[in-house]
Amino acid sequence: MTYCVGILTAGGLVVAADSRSNAGLDHIATVRKLAPFERPGERVMALLSAGNLATTQAVVTLLNQRLGNLGAPHDLFAATTMFDAARMIGAVLREVIQHDGEHVQPHGDPSATFLFAGQLKGERHRLFLIYPAGNFIEATPETPFLQAGETKYGKPILDRVISYDSSLAEAAKCALLSFDATMRSNLSVALPIDMWCYRAGSLCAELRIDIREGDPYLVALREQFGAGMLDLFNRLPAPAWTPAEDAAAAE
Amino acid sequence: MTYCVGILTAGGLVVAADSRSNAGLDHIATVRKLAPFERPGERVMALLSAGNLATTQAVVTLLNQRLGNLGAPHDLFAATTMFDAARMIGAVLREVIQHDGEHVQPHGDPSATFLFAGQLKGERHRLFLIYPAGNFIEATPETPFLQAGETKYGKPILDRVISYDSSLAEAAKCALLSFDATMRSNLSVALPIDMWCYRAGSLCAELRIDIREGDPYLVALREQFGAGMLDLFNRLPAPAWTPAEDAAAAE
Repeated sequence: MTYCVGILTAGGLVVAADSRSNAGLDHIATVRKLAPFERPGERVMALLSAGNLATTQAVVTLLNQRLGNLGAPHDLFAATTMFDAARMIGAVLREVIQHDGEHVQPHGDPSATFLFAGQLKGERHRLFLIYPAGNFIEATPETPFLQAGETKYGKPILDRVISYDSSLAEAAKCALLSFDATMRSNLSVALPIDMWCYRAGSLCAELRIDIREGDPYLVALREQFGAGMLDLFNRLPAPAWTPAEDAAAAE
Repeated sequence: MTYCVGILTAGGLVVAADSRSNAGLDHIATVRKLAPFERPGERVMALLSAGNLATTQAVVTLLNQRLGNLGAPHDLFAATTMFDAARMIGAVLREVIQHDGEHVQPHGDPSATFLFAGQLKGERHRLFLIYPAGNFIEATPETPFLQAGETKYGKPILDRVISYDSSLAEAAKCALLSFDATMRSNLSVALPIDMWCYRAGSLCAELRIDIREGDPYLVALREQFGAGMLDLFNRLPAPAWTPAEDAAAAE
């Protein structure tokens, strides 16, 4: 299983993916699910993958092979908008499914989902969720985050905290808390977390962060959030209608 | 969609279900998903339903029709342990699926899942999760809560807070927060919440609570939890590696 999250704020983008793959019973391994495509000063993009590993690797490989080859189809360096780039990714995904789908189906689900984030010079920074069908939706100020993979455990904290006006630091902090909730509930989502924080307008991928087990910031965040949640819970009023404090004595 | 949660503590049981049904496109309605089976002083049980409404209603109806009929199969009033009662429910579920399953399949999923909680005189209080196959698992002090239906959004708060030593008041409070998280993220889980708090050893269903829109305790809990979460989030340290506070100015 995979968890990917992308957050669109006024100030930029924060995207993150975990690195656990269990492709095949005996191949539990670490796999990078965040692929960068960058020409500093001109365009900077990141593709985050969830789903069948053979499919997602084929898509990323084909996109890389066609990068900057004049006249090649689906050249992300030739796209003039992020929308057109997202369409290219959807097309390559359809191509891979066309090639492998029916052969894979008897053995498991061949499908894949992507988050796609970045900025092209002359355009605003943008964030997309590309569906297994190759179509996609875009994040907006009203819906500033998108998720792929094991999305549900980590959604409540995003719902409560994130808005388009969140700072990049807040978005990064919240993304990590969202991962923490997911990893606590689903063991197949695991560290390291591959994170990219992008300042709108910078057109370079300066802040790519690799968060591993024992990372001091993640450890501090987990401890303080866990303790703070318990403290908050204990300070909330008890319902008037439960048997007061005789519960433990009732056995 | 439905959300059901059951919590087993040293002092008793807290179970709760939402009341939204969307059986058929035009029949979005309120349906009770918590069915009590009770003989005060002797046995008190509750069955919480998730899944196909026709299936779950058929199971509950058959169980009620057979209740106290001497010699009838699957008479919950004749069960001598909660384990045997859970087996009866599993058997009735299989009977209903046998009767309707293949006819329903072309139109949708006929399956159902149940939480089953209560106590029989002479036994400890117990909590079970009955699977669509009719088999089941039981909550233990190490795994003190079980969920059915739309389970994921509401799991993180349970994971953080609930233990076998929680008081009934704490369990009830946490169950409501778990519902709040679920209802925020999935509109098809909705009020009223039907909740039952059971004091171990009491052998009567004294505390059945119906929590509707505008319920003062739920409103206070939501507001204080939401504000407390934001406050906690803001007090957590920011990551050192994000562009400090120039985020909003970068556009």
